[in-house]
Amino acid sequence: MSMTVFFDEAHRQHSPKGELHGGELVEPFERPSRIDFILDRLELKGFCDIRRPDRFDPAPVFQLHDSGYLNFLETAWDDWVREGFSGDLIPTTIPARRMPANHCPENIDGKAGWYAMAVETSITQGTWEAAKASCASAQSALRHVSSGEAECAFALCRPPGHHAMRDMFGGYCFVNNAAVAAQMFLDSGAARVAILDIDFHHGNGTQDIFYDRSDVLFISLHGHPKHAFPYYSGYAGEVGTGDGSGYNLNLPMGPGTQYDEWCGALETATGRIREFGADALVVSLGVDAYKDDPISFFRLESKDFIDCGRRISGLRLPTVIVMEGGYAINEIGVNVVGFLEGFLDN
Amino acid sequence: MSMTVFFDEAHRQHSPKGELHGGELVEPFERPSRIDFILDRLELKGFCDIRRPDRFDPAPVFQLHDSGYLNFLETAWDDWVREGFSGDLIPTTIPARRMPANHCPENIDGKAGWYAMAVETSITQGTWEAAKASCASAQSALRHVSSGEAECAFALCRPPGHHAMRDMFGGYCFVNNAAVAAQMFLDSGAARVAILDIDFHHGNGTQDIFYDRSDVLFISLHGHPKHAFPYYSGYAGEVGTGDGSGYNLNLPMGPGTQYDEWCGALETATGRIREFGADALVVSLGVDAYKDDPISFFRLESKDFIDCGRRISGLRLPTVIVMEGGYAINEIGVNVVGFLEGFLDN
Repeated sequence: MSMTVFFDEAHRQHSPKGELHGGELVEPFERPSRIDFILDRLELKGFCDIRRPDRFDPAPVFQLHDSGYLNFLETAWDDWVREGFSGDLIPTTIPARRMPANHCPENIDGKAGWYAMAVETSITQGTWEAAKASCASAQSALRHVSSGEAECAFALCRPPGHHAMRDMFGGYCFVNNAAVAAQMFLDSGAARVAILDIDFHHGNGTQDIFYDRSDVLFISLHGHPKHAFPYYSGYAGEVGTGDGSGYNLNLPMGPGTQYDEWCGALETATGRIREFGADALVVSLGVDAYKDDPISFFRLESKDFIDCGRRISGLRLPTVIVMEGGYAINEIGVNVVGFLEGFLDN
Repeated sequence: MSMTVFFDEAHRQHSPKGELHGGELVEPFERPSRIDFILDRLELKGFCDIRRPDRFDPAPVFQLHDSGYLNFLETAWDDWVREGFSGDLIPTTIPARRMPANHCPENIDGKAGWYAMAVETSITQGTWEAAKASCASAQSALRHVSSGEAECAFALCRPPGHHAMRDMFGGYCFVNNAAVAAQMFLDSGAARVAILDIDFHHGNGTQDIFYDRSDVLFISLHGHPKHAFPYYSGYAGEVGTGDGSGYNLNLPMGPGTQYDEWCGALETATGRIREFGADALVVSLGVDAYKDDPISFFRLESKDFIDCGRRISGLRLPTVIVMEGGYAINEIGVNVVGFLEGFLDN
């Protein structure tokens, strides 16, 4: 038994020189080699059906993201270079609390800040191409499942997507691949789609996109925002608004959380998905809950990802698994493929 | 005729390694040597009454700034070092638009972002000491004037203050020295105080602090936020709120603005101050409207600062002049002292 993997080499076009971390520009934690570790492990474990995705379809992306934002992503690098800057595009100023203006600036530094939810994420020459290719992998995985060809598929996306809000990039994310997959499930006939986000960091972007909708249930298990990026989103009290009230479930956990507690939250999540009556599932798969992840604080072991995959598979839903974060690069392959094996094993 | 200058060498304790600019960490534009250029020119022009300020008085600062914010400024560097970071303190994440949480994080990166309105401004080991000494200069200048000892005084503040909001740092600013001086004018008996901010950048911090008050009239001449930092504040439509409605006047101008247009805005400002019936005046003196300033886009000549000083002096008000920005370091001394000479010449 195996699973089709969708993946595009174009991800390499997004390769920032630096990430702002601890007051320095360090080698980005979210780097191209992450994917190589996963591909090596997939090959070792016999996942041999690895396909290049079909062409990127902008339609569902424009459905979920702001068109001004998408236009910004497409043109930002050229505007930045035209301004005379020689570093990666990193904005200096984000509209802060009580900043009164509701206008996107014309200046590229200001415009980039307007469209940013964090500044550790650099935009480079190939970022937009990579982001489109990443989203295309999610789209192809979606079609592979929604067509009935398979029960599940894995979109090996890079850059990741779950922090990308309707009109903001950050947290290494530009286009919300998981949200696009969920929307495409709906567009292909599903009435109710669940997104289960097990990345260590709160999926604030996915929450933002579906916050007022009841056709998509969003559940996130993550490091408590008191202590973890993105800091200002991910509290349990964020339950959705309007029609979406009750369709957003945040399960934040504190530093040092181990699998027994984490797994309890996972059971809460799967229970809620069953209750919701989801027709399809999107998994935002980050493996940075792993104990040795360099920028996270949970304590999951590699074997726990296998168990986690098995439990989620127990939902028996058409499932698209979308790659998000995970930065302990030696173990990222082991943990991702462990999850897939557990998922297939059930 | 001369003017007393208040100044503290402790400003040197704030000397960040880098400023985030154009995607790189560059030598900060706001650097200690700025003050040396001004001191040299003061000496050359016979300003020989240069005094060290009295001790910093926290009371008026706590009146205007949030106590959690001030506590953060005092403890941030130690917390940052304890977290294991080796660079300057630069946050990665600011609460962006639609970020739902209203909680200050416990994590130092998150906490710093909570209290930041921009990330080009680094906090270092000596920042809090320098910020207090800078504010002390404004306080001593204020007492020198409010006591009736002199009609005017110059606070050679560094770091500057006008971008510092009630509870946010940024734009090289930590404590709002001009706002503190204005409050102390009121506390010493003035009924109405005007703050005239001629720094190239919008004085968003001063605006924020007095936005709902009618006892302080705030007027700012600055680069239009569509094109200039701080980007999301400084529009003409920001006129104050509640009691403060009508007591905030923004006069934004576009790239390439020359003195004839700028001076027209200055006349609008002085007219409004007369109409307001101010008892005292605080001038936020930035000289980055100068044509060769590296991070600004107005076209003022050095002689224009002399004329500007003369015109403001024509208001005939007890005046404290507080140093803000100005980054063309070779000319910063010429332009600051030119302003003071024009002011004294009237």
